[in-house]
Formats: sequence, C-alpha cells, structure tokens
Amino acid sequence: MSQEWQEVARFGKKVVASGLTSSRFGNISLRRDGRIFITSTGSMLDELDHDDVVEVGLTGGLCPKNASSETCVHRAIYMCTSFQAVIHTHSPYAVALSLLEEASVEPVDGEGMIFLGAMPVVLGGFGTEELAESVSTALRSCKACIARGHGVFAGGESLNDAYTAACMAEHSSQVRYLVRAFQGPPKFRE
Amino acid sequence: MSQEWQEVARFGKKVVASGLTSSRFGNISLRRDGRIFITSTGSMLDELDHDDVVEVGLTGGLCPKNASSETCVHRAIYMCTSFQAVIHTHSPYAVALSLLEEASVEPVDGEGMIFLGAMPVVLGGFGTEELAESVSTALRSCKACIARGHGVFAGGESLNDAYTAACMAEHSSQVRYLVRAFQGPPKFRE
Amino acid sequence: MSQEWQEVARFGKKVVASGLTSSRFGNISLRRDGRIFITSTGSMLDELDHDDVVEVGLTGGLCPKNASSETCVHRAIYMCTSFQAVIHTHSPYAVALSLLEEASVEPVDGEGMIFLGAMPVVLGGFGTEELAESVSTALRSCKACIARGHGVFAGGESLNDAYTAACMAEHSSQVRYLVRAFQGPPKFRE
Amino acid sequence: MSQEWQEVARFGKKVVASGLTSSRFGNISLRRDGRIFITSTGSMLDELDHDDVVEVGLTGGLCPKNASSETCVHRAIYMCTSFQAVIHTHSPYAVALSLLEEASVEPVDGEGMIFLGAMPVVLGGFGTEELAESVSTALRSCKACIARGHGVFAGGESLNDAYTAACMAEHSSQVRYLVRAFQGPPKFRE
Repeated sequence: MSQEWQEVARFGKKVVASGLTSSRFGNISLRRDGRIFITSTGSMLDELDHDDVVEVGLTGGLCPKNASSETCVHRAIYMCTSFQAVIHTHSPYAVALSLLEEASVEPVDGEGMIFLGAMPVVLGGFGTEELAESVSTALRSCKACIARGHGVFAGGESLNDAYTAACMAEHSSQVRYLVRAFQGPPKFRE
Repeated sequence: MSQEWQEVARFGKKVVASGLTSSRFGNISLRRDGRIFITSTGSMLDELDHDDVVEVGLTGGLCPKNASSETCVHRAIYMCTSFQAVIHTHSPYAVALSLLEEASVEPVDGEGMIFLGAMPVVLGGFGTEELAESVSTALRSCKACIARGHGVFAGGESLNDAYTAACMAEHSSQVRYLVRAFQGPPKFRE
Repeated sequence: MSQEWQEVARFGKKVVASGLTSSRFGNISLRRDGRIFITSTGSMLDELDHDDVVEVGLTGGLCPKNASSETCVHRAIYMCTSFQAVIHTHSPYAVALSLLEEASVEPVDGEGMIFLGAMPVVLGGFGTEELAESVSTALRSCKACIARGHGVFAGGESLNDAYTAACMAEHSSQVRYLVRAFQGPPKFRE
Repeated sequence: MSQEWQEVARFGKKVVASGLTSSRFGNISLRRDGRIFITSTGSMLDELDHDDVVEVGLTGGLCPKNASSETCVHRAIYMCTSFQAVIHTHSPYAVALSLLEEASVEPVDGEGMIFLGAMPVVLGGFGTEELAESVSTALRSCKACIARGHGVFAGGESLNDAYTAACMAEHSSQVRYLVRAFQGPPKFRE
C-alpha cells in the first residue's frame, strides 16, 4: 500500500505547513478499492511513515487498534457521499467561529461563497456515533463542515480536492472573523 | 521553456512559504518574447513542475485548456501595462479590508505609502471580462489592486518586483487592519 | 548520549516550525535513567547540535554552566510528577491571556476542555525557586500551566506527549482569545 | 569574505522563517575588523548568496552602489554603539504599535520588560540622515527601537544577539497588542 500512504503523507506535510492544524492533531483518509487508508492515532501528520497510515474496512470489519480515533466519522462520510478523500483539521478561526455562530458559518469571500457555501456547524463528541452521524449528514450537501469547538471535516473527489476545501474553510473563516470584528459580535447561540 | 517554468516555480514556493496564499489558490505569470507563461488551473504553487506552467498567447490565440482560469485577467494586465510579471494571491488581510473599505485601501505604513500607494478595490467575478477590465485599468496607475472579496493582483518589471508588490500589499493591509482595529470601524460601503 | 540529544533536537525543530516559540526562546528536557537532558542556555531550538543538549543531575549535583537558566524549574517538575519530558515555550496567545485572566485560562475548545482542562496561571521570575515551586505544584494536577507574562510549561510521558500538550495550550489559548474578543474583556486581575 | 556572508545568510533565513519580515524587506549587517558586511539592496534575505552581502567602510569611504539603502543607518549605529551586528525587520505588530503609541512601546511580557525595556519609537525617512541619527541615538541605551510606520532596528554583540532582540521586539509587540486590544485603545499621538 506504499502508494496510498505516500499520497496521504504528502498532504499531511501540506496541511501542517499551511498552518491548518498542528502536527499532532487532525487526521486524513483516502478511499480506494472499497478500503479506507487512514492516519493512525497520535501520528504526526507532517512526518507520516508507512506504519502511520493503516487500512480499515469501509463498512466496518478490519480496524487496527491504532487507527485514528475518528475512524467512525470517516467511514460514515464515505457511506453517505461519493468523496474519495477526507481531511480533518483543528483550524483556529474555523473553531472560534463555530463557537460564536449559530447553525452555520457563512463565507463572505468570493471563493467561499461560490465554491464552499455555508459551512454547517455540527455537534458530537470526538469519535462518537453522534459526530459520525452529524458530520456525514452535513457533508451530503457541502464540501466542509465544522464540528463545534473541535475542527473542520472536508471531503473531495481526491486528496487534492479535500485539501482545497480544508484550505478554503479556514481562509473563509479567517476573512469572516476579520470582517465581523469590525461589524460587531455575531448573534450568540441560544 | 525550462527557464520560465523554473522562475515561476521559485516564486510559487516563496508566495506560499510567506503565507500570502495557500498552495491551492492564486496564480503567477511571466511575459517573455510576446508570450505568457502562466500557472495551470488547480496547480499547487509550492510544487510547480514543468507541466504546471503553460504557454498562452499574449493577445489570445494559444490557450491550453488547463491554463489558469484567470488567464484573461493576466492577458488584460499585460495589454494595458508594461509589467513583465503578475502575481495573484488570496491574502487574508487584503481580502478582509477589501470587504470593509470604500474604493481603495490606503497603506498607513511607510513603504506602503511611498512605494505602493492606495490600492484600488475593484469588482468582477473570477476569470470574467469584467474582472479583467477592472484589474487591468487599476494596474495602469499602481502596482497592486484588490479584487473585492477575492484577492490581490500585483505586477512588476520582473517576478521579483511583482513578488515585492504582493508582499507589500498584504503587509500594508495587515498593518492598516491592526491600526484600524484600535481606531474604530472604517466607513462601510454603501 | 546521541539518542537523547537527537530526540530533543527533533522536537526543537517542531516547536519552532509550529510557531510555538521563536528559535531563541524556550527550552526542552528529557528525563532518562535518573538523569535530565536539557537544552543549553541561548541555544537555537531549531538547530540543536550534540553540544546544545547537556546532562544535569535529577536532584542537583551535575549542572554544567551552560545548562538552561530554567533548569531548576525542570528539575522541580520531575521531582513532583511522573513526567518524562518537559517543553517550555513563549507562545503569544497563552502569554497574552496569562496577563488578562485571573487564576487560570479555561479552554473553550473541545480538546482543550477534555484533554487539557484549566491551565493555572502561575507566578515567579525566570529561573527562580519561586517559579520552580509554582510551576511544579501546578503540573501535579495538569499537563500545562502558564507562567504569567512568560510562557507555557507542558509535561508528558514522552517528548511526543509534552509537545502535544504544548500545542494544545497555544491552540486553546488562541481559540479562547478569538472567542473572548467578541464577548468583551475578561475580568481583569486585581 | 565567505565567513561573513555565510553568517549573515544563516540569519537571513532565520529572520524570514520566523515571520519577522518578508524575504524582500529588511536588512542585516555584521561589523568585523573595522568593516561592515551588509545585505545588498533588494536581496532576498532567505536566499542570500555570496554576492548579496557587500563590504562597506565603517565611517564612509567604500560603499558599493548595491549596498543596502539603509547603510547609513547601520553605519551610524556602529559609530554610536559597541554592537557588532544589526538586524532591521518590517515586523507587523511592531509597526502597527509604532503608529498607535506615543514615544515608545512598553513590553508587558516578562522577557520584554527585563531584557528589552521600552522600545523608543523614532522618526525619519528610509535611508535618511534623520533616520540614521534618531535610530543610532536610541540604540545607545537599548537593544531595539522602532522607526514609526517602518520597522524594527535591533543590535547586539553578535548576529545571534541581534536576532534575539529582533525576535523579542516582535513578540513583545504582539503580546502588548493582544493585551491592549482588551484594555481599550492606547493614547493616540498628538
């Protein structure tokens, strides 16, 4: 499976270098031939080695103990969408807005408005079925959503597309935050 | 064309490393011998390979399908100016200010005031003739302008000069933003 | 001691690359076989060489002149906890919040709330016994604390764990700062 | 002069990597044997080659056309102080505060208060005698000052020391900015 782990490792380096997440947080997966290749729990995304990307079954079954603790979320996304890759990051502006905004974060920049659209803010604890349910439901109709206070889940037809959506999610969140800071506080959650 | 793609690739790495844009956004072009060498659509600016920089005709004609979707904007700039290189970035502070300010963003830092001057905020959708028109008109009289909610277009006599203008545009935008944050909101657009 | 200095050097590069501290500030230590291996004073964390990581006695004794000026703090932490590694960084958001908040900084993001908890804000001058006392006392019951106006001290069962806690401390601080900026000033210290 | 240009090049990379300035702005010099080795005008600090660091006379005389446009400021600093190295950066938080604060920027973080002290905000256009006068006068009694709206000038007994002061200047500026943002606007300049 050298091909898959190398593709994942390449984007692991990009995700960390671009400041989307620190090297110890977030996870990345790739769907191929009815299997999922996902980063192992606690792996450093910018230093992924062959052993740090493990294979898990698409609908259950095979799941090594060291597979990402968010494996159930990735599986649910693949079950509910045609995405071939998923990237999860702990991006600071997206996380901050998910705590301030109501049901979704609306991009105010051009790319975000056109290519991303409103990012649903969803609920659920780390690696829980509730999170798997809420994230996979949200991603049926968009490329990126934000788990409240946790981070971004972005999907795409390829790791390249998922990375694009993840970059756009944080860029749109930062631009919205910077603009809102001049326009007064957003409505707070009930 | 190894020389041209290598020059573009060098500045692609610099633009991403300096945080002016994420590796999946923005585009770079170079004018040489009546031709334009421009990054291909969706290419990663920090990993540009020979195939990621394509040649297009200066006044139309040759235009590979994979040429940047903003090719018409670069062409219009070269038609209206003496610039030999153009760099387009999605820089967060510049984009945020373009959504908050009126017709232009006025640097308050020394370099920006002297070497850049007011950056016009222009309109037009991605890769549209309207954008090509508004950007190329603005760059007749300045080194950098900001497409509202989209990003910076900077030109120069060389990639080095265009990169300098692109860096200055975001630096001046960040400094202005940080200063304005203490001085109350800018006038909002009508 | 090649093994120890190389482990420390690896995390020195990560700490600087992730923006947790500038290369000239902060310090890192590892406990092994009843000894401490700690960065030397003034060493560049992103360029640590064999000579930049020195061995000091766990309970006193051996202490080369060039050992980190915070050696007494690291020693006190190892005396009071089961931590095997300690990372000290000058992280901007954590330092800023330590000057604004009362006795502790409470994460508002999910990871921070669950895995980190409230980070005590402690007192004491650089490398003083007062700082050693306050930090080591705080770290008996948490993974990270913030020396007011100074920086984060994070511990773990390994350099990997200490690095995770240090990343989480700044991420949670940045998210809290961004959220609080919309919710008005925190209570000021008496 | 390989030794000198290599020392300067090493810190050029560090200054850019640490985000203190973009690669096209700022300049670095080293005093040795009654001579000054300074970066050339327009050189990329993160890519300095042998030819990008030029020798100029300490008190005038030798001064190649491509020497940094701020050479007169560096010369004045060496004339007025015992510094052996000077680093000039365009650091965003320091520049923003220099436009907001009165005569100086007072660090509120521990290192800044103890090792840096108040950073004078000085006046003068780029590369003018007025700037040379104001900066060199200020650096007689401190390690770093801020040219209003322009950037930081930091000196030290070595490039290592000057780099430390430059890092501290931006870190202290960022921490002060973040803290002041909660405490209301600073007094504005008359």
